[in-house]
Amino acid sequence: MNIKPEVNAARLLASVADFAAIGATPAGGVNRQALGVEDRIARRLLAERALARGFTVFQDEIANLFIRREGKDASLPPLLIGSHLDSQPTGGRFDGALGTLSAFEVLEALADAGTETDRAVEVVAFTNEEGSRYSPGCMGSMAFSGAGKLADWQTTHATDGPVLADELAATLAALPEAAVRPIGHAISAFVELHIEQGPILERENVPIGVVTAVQGTKWLEIVFSGEAAHAGTTPLEFRKDPMSAAAMVIASLQSAIMPADPQARLTIGRIAAEPGSINVIPSSVTFTVDIRHPDAETLAAMERHVRQECETASRHWHCDVAINRRVDMAPAQFASSITETIADTCAALDLKSRPMVSGAFHDALFVSRVAPTAMIFVPCRNGISHNEAEFVSDAHMISGARVLLGVVGSLLLAG
Amino acid sequence: MNIKPEVNAARLLASVADFAAIGATPAGGVNRQALGVEDRIARRLLAERALARGFTVFQDEIANLFIRREGKDASLPPLLIGSHLDSQPTGGRFDGALGTLSAFEVLEALADAGTETDRAVEVVAFTNEEGSRYSPGCMGSMAFSGAGKLADWQTTHATDGPVLADELAATLAALPEAAVRPIGHAISAFVELHIEQGPILERENVPIGVVTAVQGTKWLEIVFSGEAAHAGTTPLEFRKDPMSAAAMVIASLQSAIMPADPQARLTIGRIAAEPGSINVIPSSVTFTVDIRHPDAETLAAMERHVRQECETASRHWHCDVAINRRVDMAPAQFASSITETIADTCAALDLKSRPMVSGAFHDALFVSRVAPTAMIFVPCRNGISHNEAEFVSDAHMISGARVLLGVVGSLLLAG
Repeated sequence: MNIKPEVNAARLLASVADFAAIGATPAGGVNRQALGVEDRIARRLLAERALARGFTVFQDEIANLFIRREGKDASLPPLLIGSHLDSQPTGGRFDGALGTLSAFEVLEALADAGTETDRAVEVVAFTNEEGSRYSPGCMGSMAFSGAGKLADWQTTHATDGPVLADELAATLAALPEAAVRPIGHAISAFVELHIEQGPILERENVPIGVVTAVQGTKWLEIVFSGEAAHAGTTPLEFRKDPMSAAAMVIASLQSAIMPADPQARLTIGRIAAEPGSINVIPSSVTFTVDIRHPDAETLAAMERHVRQECETASRHWHCDVAINRRVDMAPAQFASSITETIADTCAALDLKSRPMVSGAFHDALFVSRVAPTAMIFVPCRNGISHNEAEFVSDAHMISGARVLLGVVGSLLLAG
Repeated sequence: MNIKPEVNAARLLASVADFAAIGATPAGGVNRQALGVEDRIARRLLAERALARGFTVFQDEIANLFIRREGKDASLPPLLIGSHLDSQPTGGRFDGALGTLSAFEVLEALADAGTETDRAVEVVAFTNEEGSRYSPGCMGSMAFSGAGKLADWQTTHATDGPVLADELAATLAALPEAAVRPIGHAISAFVELHIEQGPILERENVPIGVVTAVQGTKWLEIVFSGEAAHAGTTPLEFRKDPMSAAAMVIASLQSAIMPADPQARLTIGRIAAEPGSINVIPSSVTFTVDIRHPDAETLAAMERHVRQECETASRHWHCDVAINRRVDMAPAQFASSITETIADTCAALDLKSRPMVSGAFHDALFVSRVAPTAMIFVPCRNGISHNEAEFVSDAHMISGARVLLGVVGSLLLAG
């Protein structure tokens, strides 16, 4: 009766392979975008496996999918584990799916061992974490945590056309077995396993990342405006060159920000000049700045630094500058009670681990606003993600699931 | 019988206005692109006015249009003056047309005064100087001077579709009054009047620029290649960021090249990043470099400087770099005999003048390879050209034509 629950490695790996077939692309990835046909097939498959094990299946108004294994006391808030099932258009088979299926494996392991728990354990697949087909991302977890409202997104059009309200209705209707429940029910905690999507764990040969925080993120769009003029006939003193201003800012920021602070991230991903003619000094240059830091004060200081550099360059090169903040996502610290539990579990399993900050935002970022939350990272090859070449080794998948199971056990014991 | 020839100011200004109506745009400019319908209308108008004055009209195989006023000795190579009649898609009414019509005014002034000349004087409108509809520009003057071959361009497609051979045939056929002559006939000299297309004459309040040279020009296309990666999860030490490399090069060149040498020009007019996503470190950044200098050695050194900076940035930011030279046009010194004549003429007419280097390339650049050549610049408002707002004052148009007439007189006297 008191069998210790164990991860069934073969079952987990087969499960990952099964779901990788849903929306499979020729290059070995998946195209299983939110609220589309493939998303519905994946939900159905998971729901059927859940029902076959005697678990119950729920969905809320934004189609967050929950699989529940009852505990002794139904009045206690359940422990939540899981991730998302939707993917990028040319996504990998592990991003989201590994965390959701590892969580389901935990449920099956508890059921195999006949483990009685005080509180229920629920697996979640949050709706539209990726934000590729419908923007913004993390829709399901935002609605769950009250950080966003479904009503604001109902009329959004998919990149391929259909209105969200229609696709959502179809998704909910496709799973009549899933009883509808009110959105945002109380939970005791949330633990999300996810691939790192970065290179650190692999390069350091560490199988588990204990995620202690998620970086805050700001996205800025910067436009320098000068005066288009002839490249051959215009001397320096008559130029109002926004390209020179933009290059000065970018070069200065790249040499200052990240070298000074290993936790800071600064990226210029997009740039364009108008009119964009080889022999015309541009009239304007537009570029984007993505800055991140786990500390809110430091992130704010980074934004001020960017703005100061823009002011300096604008004066130096006689241009105007306009800065538009497009995204402003506060950092979040995860619950130390849970991160310590993760670290202890790794030690007990003789698995190396290291604390780290998540550079990407996840559903856990939003759920952390309503319950103690943390994440477990596993390595992915070359840190590649959002890419059909995304890859996690069998060994790392198994380790990750074992840690998740151990953490769940400890949290349930703790009450 | 020895009336001194004089420019008829009203006739010149009316002529400029008449031609500005051919291909006129709503914004006050012209769209009279090479070898198109409007180009043919302008050629016809000029040919008819020529024939009405008793001049003869010729065209060569690339439709360079010549208007000839006979001298006493038809065996002497004619003195050539003129420019081009074709325009940019949203061009100004003065770029090329002013030089061609000022030259025609000179012919009419000589005819009005009954001036007998030893050698003939010819006005030319070179074909396709702009290079916007058919690339490259300066086609007519390149073919005239042997710097290029019509055979190489016959199959070129226009930006709007038609093959050059067809449009050229139609243009030649539209002017049966123009006898066809062999291309590249001998001339004694070439003098081209043109708008400055830069801001110097206007800002210095000088009505005439004595153009002593044309800058050499090189166009480079530079591609830095790195590795696309997640903006949030990738620490600095794992980055291969081509944006940082590009910005380093551009910022360094902009602070070094032009400040050190007032004759140098360096412009980055076009830039783009792939994939161009706000939260992805780019896999590649491509940008163009336009460098110019009147001294060939210095221009070569500038190119070496650009390449060295690219090598440095490539090593510093762990990227590859590829540099492709797209255009390589040698500088040209104009004939001092002619530039001195221009300066003397200005003094005699009590007009301020200043020597200067042309930052743009012109038909004169190529003709200077086969005959003594120089250019006369007149100011244009704010230096604006290749723009419907291009503007030259009546006074400056009249001064320019008077100088051209005076120069022609001096050159004819000199033999």
